[in-house]
Amino acid sequence: MDEVKVIEIKQSVFKNNDERAERLRNELKEKGVFLLNLMSSPGSGKTTTLKATINALKDKLRIGVMEADIDSDVDAKKIAETGVKSIQLHTGGMCHLDADMTRQGIHSLNTDDVDLAILENVGNLVCPAEFDTGAVKNAMILSVPEGDDKPLKYPLMFSICDAVLINKIDVLPYFDFDIEKCKGYIYKRNPNAKVFTICAKSGEGIEEWADWLNNEVTKWIK
Amino acid sequence: MDEVKVIEIKQSVFKNNDERAERLRNELKEKGVFLLNLMSSPGSGKTTTLKATINALKDKLRIGVMEADIDSDVDAKKIAETGVKSIQLHTGGMCHLDADMTRQGIHSLNTDDVDLAILENVGNLVCPAEFDTGAVKNAMILSVPEGDDKPLKYPLMFSICDAVLINKIDVLPYFDFDIEKCKGYIYKRNPNAKVFTICAKSGEGIEEWADWLNNEVTKWIK
Repeated sequence: MDEVKVIEIKQSVFKNNDERAERLRNELKEKGVFLLNLMSSPGSGKTTTLKATINALKDKLRIGVMEADIDSDVDAKKIAETGVKSIQLHTGGMCHLDADMTRQGIHSLNTDDVDLAILENVGNLVCPAEFDTGAVKNAMILSVPEGDDKPLKYPLMFSICDAVLINKIDVLPYFDFDIEKCKGYIYKRNPNAKVFTICAKSGEGIEEWADWLNNEVTKWIK
Repeated sequence: MDEVKVIEIKQSVFKNNDERAERLRNELKEKGVFLLNLMSSPGSGKTTTLKATINALKDKLRIGVMEADIDSDVDAKKIAETGVKSIQLHTGGMCHLDADMTRQGIHSLNTDDVDLAILENVGNLVCPAEFDTGAVKNAMILSVPEGDDKPLKYPLMFSICDAVLINKIDVLPYFDFDIEKCKGYIYKRNPNAKVFTICAKSGEGIEEWADWLNNEVTKWIK
C-alpha cells in the first residue's frame, strides 16, 4: 500500500502527436497489449468504476493500471488494493496526457505481462479529448449528478469516445436526469457510441460493460 | 431569449498574463466594477448557483454575466431569464480564460452600467486555476457528488479561490461526503478560504454567500 510507484511525467516537446499516437498503437498491437484511455470530469467515479471493472476481468485478463493525477497518489493506492499492477503518473499540473507522456507511463508500467493496460486520465472533460494517447479505445464516464446536458456542452469528448458509461444511476431519483434524453444527445454527437448505464458502487451494469471491454481486448490481442 | 449575444474569443498571444491581469484589475477598480471569476468542474451547479446569486443581489447591485463555454449557449439563455445583462463567450475549444480573453469579454459586455461582473469560467478544475483572469475575487463550487477528497486532487484550484461553495447539500444522505473532513482539506490548502455550504436549487445557504459577495463588491466599488 505504501509502495505505489510514482512517475513524474515530462511534458512532451513533440508537435506530431497524432503520428506518435499511431506509432504507439502499432507497437502495442505487436506486443499484444490493449490500451484503454478512461476519461471523465472530477468526481464522476473513475476510480470506483475502474476497481469494479478490474474485479470483473482480473481472472480473464492480465491488467495493469496507470493513474494519471496532478499531484496525489490517492487513486493508485485504491487500485493497488485490487491486487493488479498499478503506477501513479504525476503530470506536474498538466491537464492531459498525450501519446509521448502515455509512452513514458507504458514504459514504467512494463507491459510484458499485461493484456489490458488502462490509463486513468486527468479528471477533465476538455483537454484530454484533444490528444490521442495511442489508446485502442477511449471510454468516458458521465455521472448522473453532472446533468444530462453534458454532451451538448463538451461535444468533442463525447464524439471521440467509443464507450460512454452513465454512472451513479442509484441516485437518479434525486436528480433531474433523463437517461433517454442524454442518450439522444450522445448519439447526436457520436452515432456509434456504446452507452452503458452503471452503478459502480453496487456493481449494477458492470458485467455488460466488462463483457464489451473483454471482447474488444480479445479481438485486439489474438 | 433567442437574442443571446455570442462572442468568439480569440486565443491570446501574450506571454505576460500576470501583468495583463493586474492591469485589467486596476482598470476595473477605476471604473468601479467588481469582477468575480466563478469556477468548478462540469455539472457542479455553476449556472444554478449563479441564478440564485443574481436573484439575491439584483436589487442591490447592477449585475452583468459572461458565460464562457466551449460551444453551446445553454447557460447564457438560463441567465437571461433572470433579467440581468448576459453574454456568451465561445472559447473555441480552449479550456480556460486568461486576462486578455477576459478583457475581450468585459469589452463586449460593456460594464458602464455594471457594479458586479461575473465570469462563469469553463467547467474544469485544472487549467482555469493557472491563469489570473484579472478578477478581484475567485470563487469555486464543489458539489457533494464529486467527493470530499477533491481538495487533495486539485490543490491549485482550491488554493487560489477566496470562496469555496459546497453545493448540492440536499443529497448529502446519498453520498459518502464528510463536510468537516472536506473543510479540513480546503483549509490545509488555503487557510483563508471562506467556505459556504449551499443548495443552489432550494436556495439554502445562498443568503450568507450573497452577503459576503455584496460586502466584497461594496468595499471595492466605493
